[in-house]
Amino acid sequence: MSTPEPRRLVVRGCDVLEVPAEGECTVVSGKDIHITGNLITSIVPTGRPVPRAAEILDGTGLLATPGLVNGHTHSPMVLFRGAAEDVPVHDWFNKRVWPMESNLTAQDVHHGALLACAEMISSGVTTFVDHYFFPEQIAEAVASTGIRANIAPTFFSSQGPAALAETVAFAEHWHGGAGGRVTVSLGPHAPYTVDDADLTTLAVHARRLGIGLHLHASENLAQTESSMARRGITPIEVLERTGILDAGVMIAHGCGIIPQDYAMLADHADRVAVTSCPKVYLKHALWPLTPIRDLLDLGVTVAAGTDGAAGHNTLDVWEALRLVAMTQKLETRDAMFLSVSDTLRLAMRGGAAAARLPPGAGALEPGQLADIVLVDLSGLHHRPLHDPRAALVYGVQTNDVKSVVVDGRVLMRDRKLLTVDVPGLLAEIDARTGRLVDTSSGASVQFYDP
Amino acid sequence: MSTPEPRRLVVRGCDVLEVPAEGECTVVSGKDIHITGNLITSIVPTGRPVPRAAEILDGTGLLATPGLVNGHTHSPMVLFRGAAEDVPVHDWFNKRVWPMESNLTAQDVHHGALLACAEMISSGVTTFVDHYFFPEQIAEAVASTGIRANIAPTFFSSQGPAALAETVAFAEHWHGGAGGRVTVSLGPHAPYTVDDADLTTLAVHARRLGIGLHLHASENLAQTESSMARRGITPIEVLERTGILDAGVMIAHGCGIIPQDYAMLADHADRVAVTSCPKVYLKHALWPLTPIRDLLDLGVTVAAGTDGAAGHNTLDVWEALRLVAMTQKLETRDAMFLSVSDTLRLAMRGGAAAARLPPGAGALEPGQLADIVLVDLSGLHHRPLHDPRAALVYGVQTNDVKSVVVDGRVLMRDRKLLTVDVPGLLAEIDARTGRLVDTSSGASVQFYDP
Repeated sequence: MSTPEPRRLVVRGCDVLEVPAEGECTVVSGKDIHITGNLITSIVPTGRPVPRAAEILDGTGLLATPGLVNGHTHSPMVLFRGAAEDVPVHDWFNKRVWPMESNLTAQDVHHGALLACAEMISSGVTTFVDHYFFPEQIAEAVASTGIRANIAPTFFSSQGPAALAETVAFAEHWHGGAGGRVTVSLGPHAPYTVDDADLTTLAVHARRLGIGLHLHASENLAQTESSMARRGITPIEVLERTGILDAGVMIAHGCGIIPQDYAMLADHADRVAVTSCPKVYLKHALWPLTPIRDLLDLGVTVAAGTDGAAGHNTLDVWEALRLVAMTQKLETRDAMFLSVSDTLRLAMRGGAAAARLPPGAGALEPGQLADIVLVDLSGLHHRPLHDPRAALVYGVQTNDVKSVVVDGRVLMRDRKLLTVDVPGLLAEIDARTGRLVDTSSGASVQFYDP
Repeated sequence: MSTPEPRRLVVRGCDVLEVPAEGECTVVSGKDIHITGNLITSIVPTGRPVPRAAEILDGTGLLATPGLVNGHTHSPMVLFRGAAEDVPVHDWFNKRVWPMESNLTAQDVHHGALLACAEMISSGVTTFVDHYFFPEQIAEAVASTGIRANIAPTFFSSQGPAALAETVAFAEHWHGGAGGRVTVSLGPHAPYTVDDADLTTLAVHARRLGIGLHLHASENLAQTESSMARRGITPIEVLERTGILDAGVMIAHGCGIIPQDYAMLADHADRVAVTSCPKVYLKHALWPLTPIRDLLDLGVTVAAGTDGAAGHNTLDVWEALRLVAMTQKLETRDAMFLSVSDTLRLAMRGGAAAARLPPGAGALEPGQLADIVLVDLSGLHHRPLHDPRAALVYGVQTNDVKSVVVDGRVLMRDRKLLTVDVPGLLAEIDARTGRLVDTSSGASVQFYDP
């Protein structure tokens, strides 16, 4: 039996956003992107012969960009969007979100993850870095929709050792699943909800399995101060002592990272990433923000993310990267920091590294994964188009994303999702709405007291 | 000769966002909005008889909201979007924008204003508060597109007394023009570019004409400090002494308003508005923001705006109001400040008051101007829809706006603009692009040194 020919796809006649490892991003015009299997094989001037068997995706008049990475989210929390507004962070957890989460069934999570995948594909996200309960249901949604994800099963020490074993079993089963599109990180929730022994155990498992970890740490300064007061060490120092930094970790938020953490982070900079999700900090009135300039100076990878849609309202990573740029300019009082090129690089290459994609991912180059977004910058809100990079950072809307390719497969064409039954899914979602926000049982998945 | 019957329009079967003067905004379902001429006459349960002669706009499945007001912009600056990124405010003015503006002809401004009107209509803005050169060309664009605007002709003292006379003549000619859709404010640029004698003269003319003024004042703290150092008084005190506050004024930005200004503002609170445009403060790394909580406490009207698209990149007022809410939560360190209801009220009622629309404008009520936006909240990024108000503030995109009515006339139906030749306009715009950003002449309209 002969091996079947790999699938071939040509994205024809597009402009291409080049995102180099350093320096300015540029746009080159009139290219064909050739894809074999799940990899970009070449990018050539348009008009050259195309393999007969190749599927063609018309890119005329569109800008091809690397797929966006949502560097930190809780995808099924789309189920709670808009249901927890105008509250400080303690009430957000204790009065709204953690009680609502006690209503969730595995089926709810599956449908929530499907909705999140559909929303993300339709907005140009090709990979997301997820952290949630019922990870199998998320992995199945990723498998069926064709998107790419790194999934961390959320673990609290309060769940006990059987849950820890399950989390490891999930990793053993699903890492590399869905043709490699699903990868796994171990997901202790945070140093304030997971004890040091469990953190240490999970770090050992991560090293054994050759995977990373993904957790919340030093989310805000109050957490850092609380850790110092209770234990005399920062949350990052907890990660260092328990082997988490050594195993490799994606730290969500990190707004409470302080200079005394810097040497530890620099020592592990080759395996540590931090994802900033500024919309939720603004909405919760939390300051300071992720110290991105210092982290980049330390050599740490930085990515942009939405966090869950219960805080961010959408999974719009264009908005997330825009807010990263704007809030970092403000935080550093430097209008020149995080230029449009640096912002795109952070979101694309930084996101890909935070998601543990292969080295060099997050750029459209031969040999890289074929995760490609075709953006239409012809709308009124982009004209005249003096600088397409600025349009991507400061003007683009998710609706400007016309077509999306993940792993060499077209998942959205001319805004039509090809792998999701949208009407059926929305009917499922709407049938769950009332029950999900009912907090009358008094139950809660946890109590927030970092 | 009999008077012709006024035009009748019924927006049928929509939900309606109620924006009361105080308290929570609410959504009521299944309504018909009856319009006669340019006014809403009644809002009744759908299904009742509709006048035979009435035009019908189908609102099924859509949410009717008051039209948005862009409370401060320079509409023709869409011509420079994306052409001045990643620079501090001094360089933004002196190296980029003011030199580029020296290229502008009246025809450029006319086409820029048409593009701005088209972009705003298509994103749900029904009124804008403008400040720019070549105001006749803007007024003609407003007249032809059917949008509503309050236009202030930009005046620098360096232009001399003939220009001051022209600015007054523009007001005399255009105030109340285009069937009342064009109103005029006098537009001294700022206290640092217009001398006290001219400010005083313009205030006298404003009182004589029964119109307001619109200027930049205390835009940032550095301007306030500079005024204190040079003159011993704040920019707001300059406005008080020159009669500007007394005549009535819309102050753009006001981020440098300080407590010693508060008594003066409170004394004139019935005729002073301040528009906050946070995206440009973030991009220019300027802090503090407009002190909105204090201004509201003083009784001053506050609105949301984009400023020009050379800074904001778009004229998306949904983004502007979202950023107002988020940055104010951060500024006050209070996640409960500017709730979704208060934010919608600020943008809609506050904007209408800043634009000097009749009392009560900015809400869909009988007797009010028929400026109505139909928003589609059925997209993936809004589902499940737990709270439509939160969706409007934190999730909506301009593309969710489906139809727009201004002054009782449908200007966009199912995303098709009815009063603008979009392809022809875009061809005109693109033909101007290269010349507009050429700064090789060394010319500039002004030098920024507040």
